[in-house]
Amino acid sequence: MQKSVNASIITIGDELLVGQVVDTNSAWMAKQLNNCGIKVHKRVAVGDDAEAIWEALDAESKESDIVLLTGGLGPTADDITKPLLCKYFNGKMVVNAAALENVQTIFENYLKRPLIERNLKQAEVPDTCTVIQNKKGTAPGMWFEKENVIFVSMPGVPYEMQGMMEDAVIPALVQRYVLPRISHRTLLLAGIGESFIAERLIDFEASLPNSIKLAYLPNYGLVRLRLTLYASHAADEKLLDEKFELLKKHVQDHLVTDEDIPLEAVIGKLLAQHHKTVGTAESCTGGYIAHLITTIPGASVYFEGSIVSYSNELKENMLGVQQSTLLEHGAVSEGVVREMAVGALKTLHTDYAIAASGILGPEGGSPEKPTGTVWIAAAGKKEMKTVKMHFRFDRMRNTQLTAMYALNLLRTVIISENM
Amino acid sequence: MQKSVNASIITIGDELLVGQVVDTNSAWMAKQLNNCGIKVHKRVAVGDDAEAIWEALDAESKESDIVLLTGGLGPTADDITKPLLCKYFNGKMVVNAAALENVQTIFENYLKRPLIERNLKQAEVPDTCTVIQNKKGTAPGMWFEKENVIFVSMPGVPYEMQGMMEDAVIPALVQRYVLPRISHRTLLLAGIGESFIAERLIDFEASLPNSIKLAYLPNYGLVRLRLTLYASHAADEKLLDEKFELLKKHVQDHLVTDEDIPLEAVIGKLLAQHHKTVGTAESCTGGYIAHLITTIPGASVYFEGSIVSYSNELKENMLGVQQSTLLEHGAVSEGVVREMAVGALKTLHTDYAIAASGILGPEGGSPEKPTGTVWIAAAGKKEMKTVKMHFRFDRMRNTQLTAMYALNLLRTVIISENM
Repeated sequence: MQKSVNASIITIGDELLVGQVVDTNSAWMAKQLNNCGIKVHKRVAVGDDAEAIWEALDAESKESDIVLLTGGLGPTADDITKPLLCKYFNGKMVVNAAALENVQTIFENYLKRPLIERNLKQAEVPDTCTVIQNKKGTAPGMWFEKENVIFVSMPGVPYEMQGMMEDAVIPALVQRYVLPRISHRTLLLAGIGESFIAERLIDFEASLPNSIKLAYLPNYGLVRLRLTLYASHAADEKLLDEKFELLKKHVQDHLVTDEDIPLEAVIGKLLAQHHKTVGTAESCTGGYIAHLITTIPGASVYFEGSIVSYSNELKENMLGVQQSTLLEHGAVSEGVVREMAVGALKTLHTDYAIAASGILGPEGGSPEKPTGTVWIAAAGKKEMKTVKMHFRFDRMRNTQLTAMYALNLLRTVIISENM
Repeated sequence: MQKSVNASIITIGDELLVGQVVDTNSAWMAKQLNNCGIKVHKRVAVGDDAEAIWEALDAESKESDIVLLTGGLGPTADDITKPLLCKYFNGKMVVNAAALENVQTIFENYLKRPLIERNLKQAEVPDTCTVIQNKKGTAPGMWFEKENVIFVSMPGVPYEMQGMMEDAVIPALVQRYVLPRISHRTLLLAGIGESFIAERLIDFEASLPNSIKLAYLPNYGLVRLRLTLYASHAADEKLLDEKFELLKKHVQDHLVTDEDIPLEAVIGKLLAQHHKTVGTAESCTGGYIAHLITTIPGASVYFEGSIVSYSNELKENMLGVQQSTLLEHGAVSEGVVREMAVGALKTLHTDYAIAASGILGPEGGSPEKPTGTVWIAAAGKKEMKTVKMHFRFDRMRNTQLTAMYALNLLRTVIISENM
């Protein structure tokens, strides 16, 4: 196999070390690098601290061919990355004409505010770098080379960094190196735990060549299986496909999809394929299931709308839940989610409906219905399935689990009705 | 100032380096450490790769007093952290009786499945560690010490790691060290950009002692300002409070809150304080605004529910939007969001309502209404405010920005009506 090209990602900012923000940049960057055959060796996060950044540059450039940096390029005093890079690469600060024009354009056309001195500083860069224009913000990107290692510094604002990566950095890296082929194949499974899948796959795993690796990724009650190929020529891709087909056979009874797409996209494809529509009636999830469904571009083809009935009054008035059902069984009951689902089908004029009512925490539990108790219904015109869950986690995770189980229940109803 | 206690966080897993998952553990851990006065020096992510883990252990233990690890403790073949730690700390594997009992209890009472050999392996640990019981899963945590450095290995599953940190790791660390005081004060601002705030604060920043640091955190159209104190005794806290009061005065005209809480919690407090209720009428945001409002525990006090009217039919039938308004101005128009807001007030019986309709992308734009065009309305019984936005980002970010601007618009209406 040819020598692999390695990258390190350094994210810079005190906010990363005090836990005030979650770093989503690294994952996005890693995915892009991976897709074009560059292996990410390490990800490092350091503060706005000159010594720590300097040490990270030294350490990562020893281990990797490419060092990508994000963050610390803002216009305020805590942003020290640019002067530090100027020193690290023995340059001096100069105004970059294109970057200056970009800053001026953004202020005139978009922000519609007068420029101040501080903003003009954004157009200064070390004279030892090649500038990468920032089409979505004021801070330019900087490309340095030193002892055969490429360093690229980009802003920490996700969409600004993403624009630079897509438009300039990735194309330049692909041109620069002869890259191996890194390919992934992913399965999504429901209704089986990680260790039980592993038992089934002992022989399969043993049969894999060194160039193919199997990974288990548990994800909100589902499990993703990923086969990854590190190959030197296209023919190896065929072996990956063969192993993938074999893997599918082993877990056929729990297979949700063999594409690397989320469950809400699986639902969307199923509905579009059968020309059917869906809506939701949500209590505890407060619109989260509808939100998930509408994260998929083009969801308007199959998604009509939702009724979020947080109060019992709205459950009665908008969904036609019987007061007697609420009084006899409580809002978190099979009877109520059944009536919510029926009400949603009728009021939203859809072919399918999801309903959920539960106690997601941290407060609201009782001895009979402890926190984490959730009733879910998925209904079609002919069939209705319900399930009672007991989640043990925090409010957000319980919400996410409810949504995943609800979408998966809907999936089984759609399949059963359209067989 | 006394010597600070430093920590490094090492997260382990190939999924972190191929970009398949976003690392939320590091931010959570950093926040906990920070809250008790331990400074996070660096965060590192490496793959399921023995050499890389070994090197990270060597490198981080040179720089930090505490090295926390998560990930790689699962029951499958790609999880190699435990045998590696066994070797690194010169131990041999032994069954831990308490961990074994825990695995058995979880399978009997919760999973209700027979145990298999692979699960029993979870109870094995190196004899050179102190076991930290995992109350939420099967993989035990491991506490090692070597040359005055503490190493703690925990599972990568967030709620399992969080349980161990809260119950065992943080209490033990607080007892072990004399820790300095790290305190934060945070402001949330709306309607002013980062560089313009910085201009106002030039003198203020210059007046700060070395022990207090100011950070700017732009966040979905809002900006958070954070003052951080690294102090050796309680008296310094008074200085922090004084500086914080001064800072507030400088930005009073843009101040949303002086607490470290999200905008949706600010809205919740305002509504609860005035005994008012809110609902939403959402088109493009698909329930996301309702979801944000209901992420706050106890939201049922002021949140009634929502109508997600993705289709025009539901805008008419459920919210009473006039067909003529839709035909004349289109679904993305001031007229439509006004009628949606009025319809929500009436149908949901609330004191306030938010309405949003827009084109969030990637498809759906036109020359007159390009992708990113969003109309927002916030209405009370007496007052209605509307605003038209032009977002330039991807679908998810446009959704988040719409929600933030809508909640902030509602905030101004509530304040104006209750002055």
